[in-house]
Amino acid sequence: MKGIEQLVERNHEHARNFDGGELPQQPTLRTAVVTCMDCRIDVHAMLGLRPSEAHVIRNAGGRARDALRSLVVSQRKLGTREIMLVTHGGCGMADFQAEDFQAELGADADGIEFDTFESPEAAAADDVRFLTEHPLILPETRIRGFVYDMESGKLFRTSS
Amino acid sequence: MKGIEQLVERNHEHARNFDGGELPQQPTLRTAVVTCMDCRIDVHAMLGLRPSEAHVIRNAGGRARDALRSLVVSQRKLGTREIMLVTHGGCGMADFQAEDFQAELGADADGIEFDTFESPEAAAADDVRFLTEHPLILPETRIRGFVYDMESGKLFRTSS
Repeated sequence: MKGIEQLVERNHEHARNFDGGELPQQPTLRTAVVTCMDCRIDVHAMLGLRPSEAHVIRNAGGRARDALRSLVVSQRKLGTREIMLVTHGGCGMADFQAEDFQAELGADADGIEFDTFESPEAAAADDVRFLTEHPLILPETRIRGFVYDMESGKLFRTSS
Repeated sequence: MKGIEQLVERNHEHARNFDGGELPQQPTLRTAVVTCMDCRIDVHAMLGLRPSEAHVIRNAGGRARDALRSLVVSQRKLGTREIMLVTHGGCGMADFQAEDFQAELGADADGIEFDTFESPEAAAADDVRFLTEHPLILPETRIRGFVYDMESGKLFRTSS
């Protein structure tokens, strides 16, 4: 069986015991989490996240530029005022160079900023700065950067 | 206590019982899931997802254009060959118009495509088409669209 069909089957099992109730659409912690799409990361387990507490934005590397559209919607339309950026050790985005990849893909990839990085600490710190200075991010926003250590399961705050 | 500090505290609790082990970096189901950042969605619970099975990409609305950078990395660098798109009922991206929002934000938002939609079914179906036709998405990719029903916890396949 292919991947999608397996996941649909598991969803139908999930739905049999599902008790949806009425959950708020606005995150109760007023927080947006940005992290990597990495298959080893279960954000709800990593942060002990409960229903309706936070937006979860995920992309390759957990980069802020790629999350900007979502963060603007999160703040202006759904009231979040904190942004938690989480990169991690062993990330695939540290295994290649954006320029090489861009050259390999050719003109179809023009305009895509792959945003690879050398260290997850530096990536998170850069992205804290990027968001702090961005005119679309509300000035009162609390922004913090973390690195997730896959061996200990623990978050470490970046220096900036 | 602020949102971020609460989540860091819960992470430290999580780390106390954490057994990382050696998990593969490449998704074992060779599948990438794209869905909304909505605070009511726990992707791992919704799909019964186990560690290292799939990439999880999340953004406002669960839109494919905004996920393109991540999908290209997922396919070319980490071997995925299936894409599961999941929109949902009650999505905030159906509650406003992209043009109004763009006008409200002004020039700083030039170049951001907010990709709002009227129906989650139509959004997922559009995005299946967008990815199917996109030159950067590998032609052998299996792409399927679903709508997540928040009341029953169940996924429904879109018609296209």
